[in-house]
Amino acid sequence: MERKLKKVADSETEQVQVVMAGHINGAGRLFGGQLMAWIDVVAAVTARRHSGRNVTTAAVDHLEFKTAAYANEALILKGRVTWVGRTSMEVRVDSFAEGLDGSRKLINRAYVVLVAIDERERPVEVPGLELVTEEDFSEWKAGEIRHEQRRKASKA
Amino acid sequence: MERKLKKVADSETEQVQVVMAGHINGAGRLFGGQLMAWIDVVAAVTARRHSGRNVTTAAVDHLEFKTAAYANEALILKGRVTWVGRTSMEVRVDSFAEGLDGSRKLINRAYVVLVAIDERERPVEVPGLELVTEEDFSEWKAGEIRHEQRRKASKA
Amino acid sequence: MERKLKKVADSETEQVQVVMAGHINGAGRLFGGQLMAWIDVVAAVTARRHSGRNVTTAAVDHLEFKTAAYANEALILKGRVTWVGRTSMEVRVDSFAEGLDGSRKLINRAYVVLVAIDERERPVEVPGLELVTEEDFSEWKAGEIRHEQRRKASKA
Amino acid sequence: MERKLKKVADSETEQVQVVMAGHINGAGRLFGGQLMAWIDVVAAVTARRHSGRNVTTAAVDHLEFKTAAYANEALILKGRVTWVGRTSMEVRVDSFAEGLDGSRKLINRAYVVLVAIDERERPVEVPGLELVTEEDFSEWKAGEIRHEQRRKASKA
Amino acid sequence: MERKLKKVADSETEQVQVVMAGHINGAGRLFGGQLMAWIDVVAAVTARRHSGRNVTTAAVDHLEFKTAAYANEALILKGRVTWVGRTSMEVRVDSFAEGLDGSRKLINRAYVVLVAIDERERPVEVPGLELVTEEDFSEWKAGEIRHEQRRKASKA
Amino acid sequence: MERKLKKVADSETEQVQVVMAGHINGAGRLFGGQLMAWIDVVAAVTARRHSGRNVTTAAVDHLEFKTAAYANEALILKGRVTWVGRTSMEVRVDSFAEGLDGSRKLINRAYVVLVAIDERERPVEVPGLELVTEEDFSEWKAGEIRHEQRRKASKA
Repeated sequence: MERKLKKVADSETEQVQVVMAGHINGAGRLFGGQLMAWIDVVAAVTARRHSGRNVTTAAVDHLEFKTAAYANEALILKGRVTWVGRTSMEVRVDSFAEGLDGSRKLINRAYVVLVAIDERERPVEVPGLELVTEEDFSEWKAGEIRHEQRRKASKA
Repeated sequence: MERKLKKVADSETEQVQVVMAGHINGAGRLFGGQLMAWIDVVAAVTARRHSGRNVTTAAVDHLEFKTAAYANEALILKGRVTWVGRTSMEVRVDSFAEGLDGSRKLINRAYVVLVAIDERERPVEVPGLELVTEEDFSEWKAGEIRHEQRRKASKA
Repeated sequence: MERKLKKVADSETEQVQVVMAGHINGAGRLFGGQLMAWIDVVAAVTARRHSGRNVTTAAVDHLEFKTAAYANEALILKGRVTWVGRTSMEVRVDSFAEGLDGSRKLINRAYVVLVAIDERERPVEVPGLELVTEEDFSEWKAGEIRHEQRRKASKA
Repeated sequence: MERKLKKVADSETEQVQVVMAGHINGAGRLFGGQLMAWIDVVAAVTARRHSGRNVTTAAVDHLEFKTAAYANEALILKGRVTWVGRTSMEVRVDSFAEGLDGSRKLINRAYVVLVAIDERERPVEVPGLELVTEEDFSEWKAGEIRHEQRRKASKA
Repeated sequence: MERKLKKVADSETEQVQVVMAGHINGAGRLFGGQLMAWIDVVAAVTARRHSGRNVTTAAVDHLEFKTAAYANEALILKGRVTWVGRTSMEVRVDSFAEGLDGSRKLINRAYVVLVAIDERERPVEVPGLELVTEEDFSEWKAGEIRHEQRRKASKA
Repeated sequence: MERKLKKVADSETEQVQVVMAGHINGAGRLFGGQLMAWIDVVAAVTARRHSGRNVTTAAVDHLEFKTAAYANEALILKGRVTWVGRTSMEVRVDSFAEGLDGSRKLINRAYVVLVAIDERERPVEVPGLELVTEEDFSEWKAGEIRHEQRRKASKA
């Protein structure tokens, strides 16, 4: 039987947040752990949309803070599937601070790996990823390399 | 001087959430107050995008729970400007529960009124709304009526 | 069989809060969504006391922010039943900022509609409202009008 | 100059809460630390009302859990001043679970000591307590004893 | 059958926190109720380690704030068993603010009483406490006295 | 001038948590984003202790969930410095679920990179790491490789 395919655009996910006082650390900047919690939610919804299944976070790779965010800034988080294995999916989540003039500044990029699970929490197969744009192809290639590195790191 | 115009599409805003244990009330359903807090954030970002200004919530109108939401459901909140006055904007926020098959069920519709403010918290003029689709026009008309009702209610 | 009656005073409810750093938005003022969450709790307890049942929030009407609240202010929320249908109740929640000298300033007024439910989440009849004071009567009349508007809005 | 006096009733404070999923521990019962946080807020507002000053919590005495509370129960917290020193006040906070039939069950009793402070965080004198009822007198006597025990414990 | 014994060191527990914006009150200092919630968690883990059982908080004694803590400070909480009855344990939790130079300042000391419970929430016997150091012995003696005072206070 | 050296043991950090209802996702398991927030706090305190400076999170590497955690489990998080650059530090945080019998099961391992900053948020030099045990040496070597990969990934 042939494996079902889905496009990247079929599961793209967007979230907005406003940085409030309860989200900042004691030094006046967005608390990194709070941003990670938001990233995890966006990654989970993206992976649910791709797989049509419940999902569980397996790993985070190369999450990188590019610059700080501050109270009262609007944040935009965007999730997209970059690579899929048999039961796992890699999702890239980009977080932007959006200025009042509509400009966007990348503040964080993260690659999150999630696994689709059935009702008894066993991994289940996910649709393949139909690559369309050049970015789709280059992300896939980089995703393959990260997947290999994770496999080696897990064994070590 | 002519007033600047913006389209509804220029400020449309989307947010996703996953209903977790900390969001539900003691009866196993999404806590209404939690949903209202999320709606307020989506309305605020929509109004910021339309006005290019900081905003403050002035009122909520006709917020209506259509059906309950439960733990582990994904929620999609969508905000769009429906009416603008000189310094105030009415934003409609629709909240949907999204099934694993991608189906969406409307669980809440709310009309939130926000005011654009400058650095000293004084109201400032916002761009006009360029109506394009039929829905834009019918929302505007209904928004006018709600605006009139609010004015009367405030005076009473 | 005659319907049981209860007075407004039988279910009046009061709550205090202190506005802390975790409750304010990025602009130093009480986050509207946080206040809405507190209002929802007060409305729910008021409606439980009137109905002697579990309740669920159905709608919010004419919630209006009169003025901003700031960190370190004490807030008083007061709930009272203003109108009842067969299974639904309208509750008014007034929120005040209380100064150190005991003075109170109205910062928000909200009308919340809740429905009494049984163990299987089906609506159940609630006691009627025995109107005593002039305020009870004028609130009831205004509640009737809001109820009619909601019915029309739901149908539209 | 004579010291101002206030009655216990002048500063009595009441709060309601509904126990939600986010308030319970992993064993299905109200998390004790959450209740303590609510008690601290009620004690602070009670002491603000008595002193007309900002206050800071100095100590908690004899906080005792009488019985467990569970999800979906309504809680009522009531604060009253029981004893005052020159700059400190002892506040008793009783927490009740309220049944749907209006019955109340005491789940926790706590004695919290707070100090009134001025803008520079220095202790300031508070009004005396005018004892009226028999309960006022017996609480005051017990408060004196607790005050003495605290003083000895602090020195030890 | 002889009762099992455990040393104080067998259950000592340590927690770190960083005071963030969401933890402070409206006056810029650590919210007392937040610290109490953290203390309750440390006490619970200490008592679980001593008893090898689930535990429930029964009382708090002589919790005392020594000095204020501020945003961005690191806090260290340390829990140790000081006294045990048949089914109850008294745990002392000391909270320190840790400076960047490693210095520690005691900001709070609390004595928390917890009870070990079985699957049906009935109290169960806990191991005895093998006293080793002089501090162990002097804490035990003071714990006995507090235990007697609690018993009298409960009866009153 | 010679660079100051510190041992791994000088900054080791430990935190305990109890998984409560508010920490779990809609599927009854510990929410990954919540664990990441706790990991970020432990990493920050570890890095503060090594550097004697305020720190900011720069990146997360190879965070991996080994197995799920559930409500009512006690968690132990342990942080240790594994590698240092001129101004950056890599911290490994291991998270364990602790059974009532004291057994520990690794549920998550994360490598977090933090940068020491001065009062004006500029990076500042941190002490070198004096390697003592074999584990110290093997972690350092692996840290070097991760550092190189991050550099390449940042450039790409």
